[in-house]
Amino acid sequence: MYKEPFGVKLDFETGIIENAKKLVRKLSDMKGYFLDEQAWKELVEKEDPVVYEVYAIEQEEKDGDLNFATTVLYPGKVGKEFFFTKGHYHAKADRAEIYFALKGRGGMLLQTPEGKAKFIEMVPGTVVYVPPYWAHRTVNTGNEPFIFLAVYPADAGHDYGTIKEKGFSKIVVEEDGKVVVKDNPKWKE
Amino acid sequence: MYKEPFGVKLDFETGIIENAKKLVRKLSDMKGYFLDEQAWKELVEKEDPVVYEVYAIEQEEKDGDLNFATTVLYPGKVGKEFFFTKGHYHAKADRAEIYFALKGRGGMLLQTPEGKAKFIEMVPGTVVYVPPYWAHRTVNTGNEPFIFLAVYPADAGHDYGTIKEKGFSKIVVEEDGKVVVKDNPKWKE
Ligand SMILES: [Mn+2]
Ligand SMILES: [Mn+2]
Repeated sequence: MYKEPFGVKLDFETGIIENAKKLVRKLSDMKGYFLDEQAWKELVEKEDPVVYEVYAIEQEEKDGDLNFATTVLYPGKVGKEFFFTKGHYHAKADRAEIYFALKGRGGMLLQTPEGKAKFIEMVPGTVVYVPPYWAHRTVNTGNEPFIFLAVYPADAGHDYGTIKEKGFSKIVVEEDGKVVVKDNPKWKE
Repeated sequence: MYKEPFGVKLDFETGIIENAKKLVRKLSDMKGYFLDEQAWKELVEKEDPVVYEVYAIEQEEKDGDLNFATTVLYPGKVGKEFFFTKGHYHAKADRAEIYFALKGRGGMLLQTPEGKAKFIEMVPGTVVYVPPYWAHRTVNTGNEPFIFLAVYPADAGHDYGTIKEKGFSKIVVEEDGKVVVKDNPKWKE
């Protein structure tokens, strides 16, 4: 009747959580997500790299319970755009989330349902508060894997569809060797 | 109307979270918690050490929102019993919690309302899942500060009274230089 407490090992160097469920997203799984579609196609045909891996320990979808997961987001670009995670709203939109950056560097792109975006830089030690209602996507702006831990309500769920269709209003690109956050020309209001 | 996302810096070495609310628990704040009351009294009169500090960033008590906090639990003993945090059930008893050990070594003592206890060792990288309904207390079994991050539902609340009155059914003591988890002779069912 009571659930059993447990402790698991998270490896700070690799991001791997023992006994976790592993999910792998390759670039071919992200058709339509990047601005430069030609660059996406060429990179998929050439090597179809892994963009990110997730190690998750999840409970039943129940109010008050909590899930946790690490993400290993690899360095890379599609055209000028840095590798990122698909990004999502929560299916239960009022569910918050806490991220904790462990390794590498990057940031989080957040967005309200009306398209107001915000970018928060993340380096090891940064804790990010994702408030209720904001979509969120992480971006690797560095040269090594960007690794972070996330804790989220077990009943938050994921709404990937809205972002897949409309994207974020901002993109994160490299220009003249610098990380630039700019308006997404393909953004659909 | 939407809350604002933010990132804050957590220092891996000190456990300090910038802009967090700081709480300090001295040994004199923990009257009646330790088994050896004479040893407690002597140590309070001699130096009244800080047992732990908490750095918390908390939201309004709302379903679906999340709080986070670090704890710096200092090394020390009262008699043979290692320093620990007061420990609590959640006021909303079905709220879970996730702990992530960053520095030092120790463990978590958990207990059901019926007094079934479990001890989980924690070293840097250990993630502990605290299921709904279990009381939880952390214990520093090492020689340096034991530092960890916790994420918990914003509406979990704290019920300290039950533990203050009844204690945990187990205690964590040093015997012959070893960490031993044993029955609490003062445990009140
Ligand atoms: Mn999420
Ligand atoms: Mn708690």
